[in-house]
Amino acid sequence: MGIVLGANQYGKAENRLVRIYRETARHEIRDVTVSTALRGDFGDAHLHGDQAKVLPTDTQKNTAYAFAKEHGLRAIEEYALTLGRHFVHDVEPVRGARISVDEHAWERVPVGGQGHDHTWVRRGPEVRTTVVDVSAEGAEVVSGLRDLVLLKSTGSEFHGFLKDGYTTLPETDDRIMSTALVARWRYTGLDVDWEKTWADARRIMLEQFATVHSLALQQTLWEMGRAVLEAHPEIAQISLQAPNKHHFTVDLSPFGLENPNEVFYAADRPYGLIEATVTRD
Amino acid sequence: MGIVLGANQYGKAENRLVRIYRETARHEIRDVTVSTALRGDFGDAHLHGDQAKVLPTDTQKNTAYAFAKEHGLRAIEEYALTLGRHFVHDVEPVRGARISVDEHAWERVPVGGQGHDHTWVRRGPEVRTTVVDVSAEGAEVVSGLRDLVLLKSTGSEFHGFLKDGYTTLPETDDRIMSTALVARWRYTGLDVDWEKTWADARRIMLEQFATVHSLALQQTLWEMGRAVLEAHPEIAQISLQAPNKHHFTVDLSPFGLENPNEVFYAADRPYGLIEATVTRD
Amino acid sequence: MGIVLGANQYGKAENRLVRIYRETARHEIRDVTVSTALRGDFGDAHLHGDQAKVLPTDTQKNTAYAFAKEHGLRAIEEYALTLGRHFVHDVEPVRGARISVDEHAWERVPVGGQGHDHTWVRRGPEVRTTVVDVSAEGAEVVSGLRDLVLLKSTGSEFHGFLKDGYTTLPETDDRIMSTALVARWRYTGLDVDWEKTWADARRIMLEQFATVHSLALQQTLWEMGRAVLEAHPEIAQISLQAPNKHHFTVDLSPFGLENPNEVFYAADRPYGLIEATVTRD
Amino acid sequence: MGIVLGANQYGKAENRLVRIYRETARHEIRDVTVSTALRGDFGDAHLHGDQAKVLPTDTQKNTAYAFAKEHGLRAIEEYALTLGRHFVHDVEPVRGARISVDEHAWERVPVGGQGHDHTWVRRGPEVRTTVVDVSAEGAEVVSGLRDLVLLKSTGSEFHGFLKDGYTTLPETDDRIMSTALVARWRYTGLDVDWEKTWADARRIMLEQFATVHSLALQQTLWEMGRAVLEAHPEIAQISLQAPNKHHFTVDLSPFGLENPNEVFYAADRPYGLIEATVTRD
Repeated sequence: MGIVLGANQYGKAENRLVRIYRETARHEIRDVTVSTALRGDFGDAHLHGDQAKVLPTDTQKNTAYAFAKEHGLRAIEEYALTLGRHFVHDVEPVRGARISVDEHAWERVPVGGQGHDHTWVRRGPEVRTTVVDVSAEGAEVVSGLRDLVLLKSTGSEFHGFLKDGYTTLPETDDRIMSTALVARWRYTGLDVDWEKTWADARRIMLEQFATVHSLALQQTLWEMGRAVLEAHPEIAQISLQAPNKHHFTVDLSPFGLENPNEVFYAADRPYGLIEATVTRD
Repeated sequence: MGIVLGANQYGKAENRLVRIYRETARHEIRDVTVSTALRGDFGDAHLHGDQAKVLPTDTQKNTAYAFAKEHGLRAIEEYALTLGRHFVHDVEPVRGARISVDEHAWERVPVGGQGHDHTWVRRGPEVRTTVVDVSAEGAEVVSGLRDLVLLKSTGSEFHGFLKDGYTTLPETDDRIMSTALVARWRYTGLDVDWEKTWADARRIMLEQFATVHSLALQQTLWEMGRAVLEAHPEIAQISLQAPNKHHFTVDLSPFGLENPNEVFYAADRPYGLIEATVTRD
Repeated sequence: MGIVLGANQYGKAENRLVRIYRETARHEIRDVTVSTALRGDFGDAHLHGDQAKVLPTDTQKNTAYAFAKEHGLRAIEEYALTLGRHFVHDVEPVRGARISVDEHAWERVPVGGQGHDHTWVRRGPEVRTTVVDVSAEGAEVVSGLRDLVLLKSTGSEFHGFLKDGYTTLPETDDRIMSTALVARWRYTGLDVDWEKTWADARRIMLEQFATVHSLALQQTLWEMGRAVLEAHPEIAQISLQAPNKHHFTVDLSPFGLENPNEVFYAADRPYGLIEATVTRD
Repeated sequence: MGIVLGANQYGKAENRLVRIYRETARHEIRDVTVSTALRGDFGDAHLHGDQAKVLPTDTQKNTAYAFAKEHGLRAIEEYALTLGRHFVHDVEPVRGARISVDEHAWERVPVGGQGHDHTWVRRGPEVRTTVVDVSAEGAEVVSGLRDLVLLKSTGSEFHGFLKDGYTTLPETDDRIMSTALVARWRYTGLDVDWEKTWADARRIMLEQFATVHSLALQQTLWEMGRAVLEAHPEIAQISLQAPNKHHFTVDLSPFGLENPNEVFYAADRPYGLIEATVTRD
């Protein structure tokens, strides 16, 4: 039984890139972290140390920066598609490219009630994401967000659950529900208004989280995903990962105080972790 | 020459506390991280392991949570003063208390154009801070913020600097200036509108960062601090710590491209670190 | 075209658990972070908020702690198998369980040349890992490590690589090679001496990293993986993820100094990222 | 009442620097993070944006790298002293310099029972530290360590403490005691064997932590500090910061299991924080 090289890829990870548009006095900013990964027949590099087919990760980095000028950087999906296609179409040994882009949000500093022309304040912790995969078969785009931290102070229950010999959790009909959402949705094609769809998917998820009366985080995630798919036929599938960031009501009775869901201990670890994909038949 | 116990203090650090106000359907939220530290004659605990004068850090934690109900938690300065005074006045061996509070900002989730009643999205990375020190002499309040990340894409120069044999930096009359500001200001007294002054000091710093044409980060910090002190006689002194988050113009000339301050590499480390205090005579 | 629930799982992540064995004066310690995730028919919870089939994540946490007493915690693979089988076999709606365990290493504090009986110092940053997946088909064990930071100051070249219009990297026949290795190997079965095999796989990887004269990180990874598979028929496959932690020779010529690979700038980001799987035919 | 510039300093923080000694086939490595901060009359830079007296932070970075070649980098205290004196003595406007160095430990990879000549594995999380302050008055050296994570599974009690209306903590005569120690000691002078004293101070603290039967973390810190000062007249004072990393015995009684200090939940936050200085009369 022989030992062989299996799946492999290589690239440059976490290129920090800021693109300023300064054609007018009112500048625009794009702040991204770009990672590239290339696939192809790189067996010689592994088995024999022969780099003849290996485009250096340093070159991939250069290309990421150069393309932000040469082809521009507006919607991260468009930028990633252009970069990925270049590697697959223009660099001979490359068979596939996976381009990941995180976008960090900035908003204009208000000065006298107006957003300033060339000064911004960072807005977080939320990050917009895309992963574009280009191969001979075409391109696939999975966009989303992470670190979208949400909390609702009521409208969340949890009871009627399965109990076994290790169950001690009391049932509740009113609790804090909080998460740091990761959402990733796959587009059916490439004819998409990337900015508009992204913003609307986010809006829908926020509204669903707020307005669905929740019997479990699972239910909330389903309703968030379902609503996104209903509103956006250009989205084929959405995956949600949601830590259940526990907020425990502190027992103040030893101090003669009631605590009707007013004072909470926000725990770091452990946390629940709920993962669900909503898809089309 | 004897060996003796010097300065010492102890407490409970980083109590994660969320306070919900739910008297009406429109809830309010305060999300804070509280640390307490007590000073006093704790020599017996150190030298002899005698805890008779030691209020456990667990008790300090309990008190922090209980006070959020018993005395409320609105302005973090008020909460910290109440907690600090309790330790110093009500717990016999305690001579001084230092209460540090970080406040994490939330904003209401928009639903149909309106902020939702009981659902929020976390806003960061910026954190509001206060450190209150209570002793027999009274109380001192130092408030501020950290992780306020700012960037301006022009209006910043750096030239005419001192050169020696290790200097290779070219001079520039147009660069990105970016920082993750830490600001701490000491109040002259306690008769302060904590919320209003905090918000206005922040507003002033943002506006100064945006509008001062900068010849160096030092100058920008000075103008930020000076403007805060001028507008707020209730502030005695302000200290600013500002990493100079370098954004380097990428050399695209090997690829036949010009780069007139459009494409930047955002570096992590090292970073400049400028620190200045602005005070009154 | 209907919208349906796709793949989903839920569990409790990052339970921090320390197990002390104290049958004799010479205590033993196991320090782990345990995550559990359950699969099954949880459609009702998502679609209708019905928790009748949902064993709470809180119960999963309780079980993880209870099992460390009830069944012990020595080799993390054995512990994870026992825990995973329990969920699949004893909890009716559960069809699959994925148990992830990170083990944090401690070594005895030396006192008078001997390791102390009940005092340890944490050894890191390296973490030992296992992921055990249990289902009706049986159990699969993938063990490994992460954050194993390695550096060699010579014996690494990189030249003869593919060049295109974006290539500026000079070739080199002597450089620092450094990585923070992630390795994960899948066992063919369960009849394994978990502790011994893990230690030997680690030993082999360290020795290969040191002794293989490297023409590229790809080649080093291949040789590491190949050697592990050759020595251990109980391992079916190994996957390696290796950031290329760049160390750049600092140009000291402006200061009249030579720098024959003696002074380096260690960069944070970007980094190369090389990923390869070595497997059997 | 005028507004004036108060204390200020500036420099380059967190220069990542690796120094390889390769005079023989058996290489040596030093891996450090260096920060420099300069003091002087920099009023013009702040008030008028005039940089004539400002040595750029970029130059400070260059100097840090160049000195690792020009003057070498062995004991971090010696390196920091050389660098600090250069800024104060050779750069006219500089009146004081503060050089901070963190050293990251590596150990040789074992190959066939021997440490390899030019390959290392990173050892952490512990970091060795020094802060050297140079001014016209001379130089002061404060060395130490941080992130030294210790745990003892018995030999630690906590009882007889002060109780008030917010106290619920039960007393205990057997608990886990664990900390992530920060220690900083100030030397009386500069005629010190830096490597040897550092190693011995560390050894003493480890041994004291292990062998002192502890009635409180305060007592353990005192005994650690006292023992270091007793053994080392070249150390004037030592400051210790010790988070009390709580390990809570998990209540397994609901599951019919006893837990005589065998299974613990290791908490992240909050943590106790004990700080003490041990000094000479």
